[in-house]
Amino acid sequence: MAYELYYWPTIQGRGEFVRLALEEAGARYVDVARGSKKEGGGMPAMFALLDGTKVDRAPFAPPFLKSGRLLIGQTANILMFLGARHQLTPAGDAGRLWTNQLQLTIADFVDEIHDTHHPVGASLYYEEQKEEASQRAAEFRAQRVPKFLRYFETVLSRNGSGKHLVGGSLSYADLSLFQVVAGLRYAFPRMMKRLERKLPRVVALHDRVAARPRIAAYLSSDRRLPFNEDGIFRRYLELDD
Amino acid sequence: MAYELYYWPTIQGRGEFVRLALEEAGARYVDVARGSKKEGGGMPAMFALLDGTKVDRAPFAPPFLKSGRLLIGQTANILMFLGARHQLTPAGDAGRLWTNQLQLTIADFVDEIHDTHHPVGASLYYEEQKEEASQRAAEFRAQRVPKFLRYFETVLSRNGSGKHLVGGSLSYADLSLFQVVAGLRYAFPRMMKRLERKLPRVVALHDRVAARPRIAAYLSSDRRLPFNEDGIFRRYLELDD
Repeated sequence: MAYELYYWPTIQGRGEFVRLALEEAGARYVDVARGSKKEGGGMPAMFALLDGTKVDRAPFAPPFLKSGRLLIGQTANILMFLGARHQLTPAGDAGRLWTNQLQLTIADFVDEIHDTHHPVGASLYYEEQKEEASQRAAEFRAQRVPKFLRYFETVLSRNGSGKHLVGGSLSYADLSLFQVVAGLRYAFPRMMKRLERKLPRVVALHDRVAARPRIAAYLSSDRRLPFNEDGIFRRYLELDD
Repeated sequence: MAYELYYWPTIQGRGEFVRLALEEAGARYVDVARGSKKEGGGMPAMFALLDGTKVDRAPFAPPFLKSGRLLIGQTANILMFLGARHQLTPAGDAGRLWTNQLQLTIADFVDEIHDTHHPVGASLYYEEQKEEASQRAAEFRAQRVPKFLRYFETVLSRNGSGKHLVGGSLSYADLSLFQVVAGLRYAFPRMMKRLERKLPRVVALHDRVAARPRIAAYLSSDRRLPFNEDGIFRRYLELDD
């Protein structure tokens, strides 16, 4: 039976981390909210599970994944589930905890990336908080991005061949770090050009993931939505340096 | 062997969610950074693991937990580990995923609580961003707090007796929800007074957790740090309604 992924239909957002894992696994899945209402898809199908009064374990927000009778929310939680099923995480408990820890650190980073354009609140438009966004983005570029990316560079350098974040094979944390690098390149091209020289392992990981056959096929398909200014990674050049 | 917890020594912060689980489990643990430098504790012991060049799987930030040779970071990840070891989570995979999902939703809520007093950036003092904090807190009180707390009220109401978030017994998610209610009462007393009337199950859960013998003993001990204005939950009355 195919997985059902539920996420906002017009952005990569946090759902993209799940899509990348499903694509790399070669799993069958339906991106439900991108489907047609006539065939039971679209936004109504998503809101039926979010707001339905009969849903036992309703998620708080998208993305969430339906796998048979299981309904699983929270990006890192979905990835932990998929990772165990599709060999995108080590078999042992210690390796799984470490993979989850790295994914949660990436999630924290993603939250901070989002807040660069929405520091004062998600209910206001970016245009209403441009000045605060400029202040927040300056701190983000100068302190937070280097701290996070150097951390992942160090994790790679301390892990044997330096080719994966965890152990000797690909994990969903690698896929997620690829996505963060791709997103930062889109949103902060000048900053990334400056920083990448000192992040050889992070950049090489990005390139290796992008070249994996299933990921490469996905990235060139119309299943991959383009980055845009409604998502997490937004290209507002005034926030770049 | 006792667990070693590493967290900032003067605040409850995110470390408190781990402390509550350790206390409820009756586990032996050392709160390392609160110990004396002479005996190998204090902040240098914490930074040795954060910044040491020989640490294989160094965490990005506190809190982290040492259990034998395992070093585990990220609050929700630590709780998943402790939950499985100390019967603070269901035995089956589905229940564990659900508990983790709720904990990650609480973590998102905690991030938003923190950002009410630091919207523009963590490197600035609150006093330097009071105006933006006021704007962000207004949205937080009007929209985000009701949305999160009603969500947990609904989760309780859909779970059998309504006494626990997950299944028929206490989980670490219950302990964490207790902490959030306690913290919100400290930081936003007027708002909580208004909201609590419509949250009978959430309030009852808070009270039941507070009355558990080990938690009650902990809360009245000097191991429980008081809430203060360096932590996540800060009492700035101008941000309350």
